[in-house]
Amino acid sequence: MARKIGMVGLGRMGANMARRMRDCGHEVVVVHDLRKEVAEELAAELACDAAPDLAAVTAAADLVFTVVTDDDAMRGIFTGDALLKDADGTVFVNCATVSPAVHEEVAGLCEAAGATSLEACMASSIPQARDGTLYLMIGGDESAFREIEGLLGDLSKSLRYVGETGRAAQVKALVNMVMNINTAALAEGLGLGKALGLDLELLCEVFSQTGANSRVLETDAEDMLARDHDCYFSAAHAAKDSGIANGLAVGAGVDVPLSKATEVQYRRLIDLGRGELDKSAVAELTFPGRLDDA
Amino acid sequence: MARKIGMVGLGRMGANMARRMRDCGHEVVVVHDLRKEVAEELAAELACDAAPDLAAVTAAADLVFTVVTDDDAMRGIFTGDALLKDADGTVFVNCATVSPAVHEEVAGLCEAAGATSLEACMASSIPQARDGTLYLMIGGDESAFREIEGLLGDLSKSLRYVGETGRAAQVKALVNMVMNINTAALAEGLGLGKALGLDLELLCEVFSQTGANSRVLETDAEDMLARDHDCYFSAAHAAKDSGIANGLAVGAGVDVPLSKATEVQYRRLIDLGRGELDKSAVAELTFPGRLDDA
Repeated sequence: MARKIGMVGLGRMGANMARRMRDCGHEVVVVHDLRKEVAEELAAELACDAAPDLAAVTAAADLVFTVVTDDDAMRGIFTGDALLKDADGTVFVNCATVSPAVHEEVAGLCEAAGATSLEACMASSIPQARDGTLYLMIGGDESAFREIEGLLGDLSKSLRYVGETGRAAQVKALVNMVMNINTAALAEGLGLGKALGLDLELLCEVFSQTGANSRVLETDAEDMLARDHDCYFSAAHAAKDSGIANGLAVGAGVDVPLSKATEVQYRRLIDLGRGELDKSAVAELTFPGRLDDA
Repeated sequence: MARKIGMVGLGRMGANMARRMRDCGHEVVVVHDLRKEVAEELAAELACDAAPDLAAVTAAADLVFTVVTDDDAMRGIFTGDALLKDADGTVFVNCATVSPAVHEEVAGLCEAAGATSLEACMASSIPQARDGTLYLMIGGDESAFREIEGLLGDLSKSLRYVGETGRAAQVKALVNMVMNINTAALAEGLGLGKALGLDLELLCEVFSQTGANSRVLETDAEDMLARDHDCYFSAAHAAKDSGIANGLAVGAGVDVPLSKATEVQYRRLIDLGRGELDKSAVAELTFPGRLDDA
């Protein structure tokens, strides 16, 4: 039997995932966001209900996607009289990048309520959510995963089951940790090249042909040169995700000096009031004179 | 008129470049290395002379390639009664990765001796030297470059003239700076993944599909997992090159915290007596338990 779908957290990721599921013929019945007008607008677009509170989401849907901002928000929606009220049989798919430990806490709360939680970690961004080409890693109960595998496949061009609850979040944390370091590294290389008066187009071409090449060279270099920091993945998110990885490293007794330096850089951007810029804005810290424009 | 070629510094790079030029029909007449037996062995292979000292190289050749280890070695061969004795008309092509300032010093010394120096920075390694597929960046006098462009093309799959003396070394320093950071970043990600008990093959696959992808993931990840640190590009070289970039950053007033942290990691490897391992050995610092094997 097809499940009735609810979506909690209507940022651009969540909204686009809901749109994509609707486009693929899945039954999106209810949406919710703390910003009531955002929920009502999307509900009108998708011809579904805007739930007045979290309990109303669970009452209307039996497959609930959540895309919230951070650990505290994740804990908030799963505690008290919220999503887990009368949640027996409900499957939750939690898509936020949060600490592995929070996924484990939530899994325990869900189990106690007769519900099931899966973690879905996404290593892609907003356009991929709209196109159904996310890179999705799933952790948690495998049979629950298999039941909705087809639907998740409609959201994803690459869907991987990676093991017990918390595993996907660990992998995601490591992906973002390395991505954030490589981004801050590129900002150092290009910023220093600029300070030396080098031809930065040439420098990027040389980087692309050599051991300096990286995915973030493709995605972020041009934006760094042009100071085009419209947000795909915010500096504040980068700080949070590097912080999660660094917390895991402390717990595991692994020394990660570069990742710690990277978190410091992204926290500097937040302190400068630029946390909502794209992560490419880390170049604002390394290109000569840019901070003076504040 | 075809130039008579000399090669100074017969490490694997220099020796392979000499072999490649001979294979392409160029006249390699003399080779030199501080290790006399190394020079004699290569001279026998190439049917040319082994010069007893540097002045004998310049006496026999009018196009001299140098591939030495560092700033001090570069200064050494160009001062006193060495390569620049009776060097009027000789063209030097200096291929070591040294500080931009040293290239400038050497260019001045050459000019005073009636000779010409070009800097040739290579963003590739030993197999590419043998196959003539180096990525070569040339700085210095453009007309001298144009005269030997065909010969340099036989060494290279991508040959770029990047401007005045020192420019190529700057570009090379930035390439290696970013490459070294990305390598140390990968070592942190994989080392932490190992400590968490993740499937590292899966983790590498996920990295390759996401924002964590990089050239060093392709070249170094497997070696990090397998602890296969046979040297292509040594940790000591990585420390030196990151140090050059960090020196440029100090001079330019650019803050490069990740590159500084990377230099510290590579210097730790040297301090642990592992400077002659490949740069992938930076993973020895981040994988749990590896340092205990010392």
